[in-house]
Amino acid sequence: MRISELSTRSGVAIATIKYYLREGLLHQGEQVAATRAEYDESHLRRLRLIRALLEVGRLPVAAIKQVVEAVEDETLPIHEVLGTAHYALGPTVEPEPGEAWDAALAEVDRIVAGQGWTITPHAPTRAELAQTLLTLRRLGMSVDLTRYAESARRIARDDMDKIPLDAPRESAVEAMVLGTVLYGRALDTLRRMAHESESAHRLDLAPQDTFGPAPEDAPSEGDRDAPTG
Amino acid sequence: MRISELSTRSGVAIATIKYYLREGLLHQGEQVAATRAEYDESHLRRLRLIRALLEVGRLPVAAIKQVVEAVEDETLPIHEVLGTAHYALGPTVEPEPGEAWDAALAEVDRIVAGQGWTITPHAPTRAELAQTLLTLRRLGMSVDLTRYAESARRIARDDMDKIPLDAPRESAVEAMVLGTVLYGRALDTLRRMAHESESAHRLDLAPQDTFGPAPEDAPSEGDRDAPTG
Repeated sequence: MRISELSTRSGVAIATIKYYLREGLLHQGEQVAATRAEYDESHLRRLRLIRALLEVGRLPVAAIKQVVEAVEDETLPIHEVLGTAHYALGPTVEPEPGEAWDAALAEVDRIVAGQGWTITPHAPTRAELAQTLLTLRRLGMSVDLTRYAESARRIARDDMDKIPLDAPRESAVEAMVLGTVLYGRALDTLRRMAHESESAHRLDLAPQDTFGPAPEDAPSEGDRDAPTG
Repeated sequence: MRISELSTRSGVAIATIKYYLREGLLHQGEQVAATRAEYDESHLRRLRLIRALLEVGRLPVAAIKQVVEAVEDETLPIHEVLGTAHYALGPTVEPEPGEAWDAALAEVDRIVAGQGWTITPHAPTRAELAQTLLTLRRLGMSVDLTRYAESARRIARDDMDKIPLDAPRESAVEAMVLGTVLYGRALDTLRRMAHESESAHRLDLAPQDTFGPAPEDAPSEGDRDAPTG
């Protein structure tokens, strides 16, 4: 197909497609004449991956380029291709060298060992979790994350059940990026919903009681103080 | 104490404190002379809350003002004060009126009912989850979130155990904001760590196999393809 059809079918503007071609995110089409290239289904699939990484994963173009290079490098095992995309999804955390940082990192390794997890030593998630632990400690909050780790393990199994590990590399990466981001967002929202409910139950409130300000046109709240039976 | 001591003890610049006073985030000190006001522990506590909302919660000043007003309104039950802060922590999602949106919202309500949760009808988390469900459906991904909701319920109980509901309103709100954001971040990182481990196990890889690109100075990866026993 021509670039105009690729644009129509993918919903990506021609100028944007040309930008992806220049940046090496999208592989070149087959040059069939001096001013015309042919594109195929592989280009459509790649555009879908780029948009997923960009719009759902909110990754910068440089990170997307790394992911695309990993997808294209046939010598890389699928686990590493997934890893490249996966690591790109997390924030970049700079270590704060010192005793407190080392202690936090050691705590991270204890949590990982406690769960029996297989994590490479250079995984960026180690520094990410160390930073959060350090912040919790500075604020005097509990740093015992055992129960969170157990929940995370259960959740990750459900996540991975949805990723077709034997599918073509691009499809597997796309499914992993979409899954990590979208199910992560769903989990975060559900957790906050459960907070509201848990707070209502602990304070023994009736279901109609409000959590936060009601909209202007909300029904009367005269029965606000009526406790649940 | 004078504003200079308040600044030193809180670590917040005098100009910033004056800005919070002007914006009504921080209550006025006691005017003891034409050009001098006295501040006390309540101001220190409030500054700590503001910084927590700003730096950890990343809330805009307008949202922080709403939270502060809820903390100060003694007629509001603690559940509503917590709710105001809690709702401010989430993104604002605009509904996309139409059949698909209504179906997604109905699905949200089914999930909530399935868990037996007490959620007010105007909770912004409903629209938030509906939007994610709609995106999942459009991408042809599974929208069955039952297991995520069950995990969220377990996690929320652990979260709420850490919030002193009988503490002064400001302390309870601060603990809830910090807990929601920091434990949420820890959970997200742990989930991604568990992904890496789960991927390694499913692909039957040895612990030394890399997930994503190794740093330049990493040891040789010659044994990359050796499977686990």
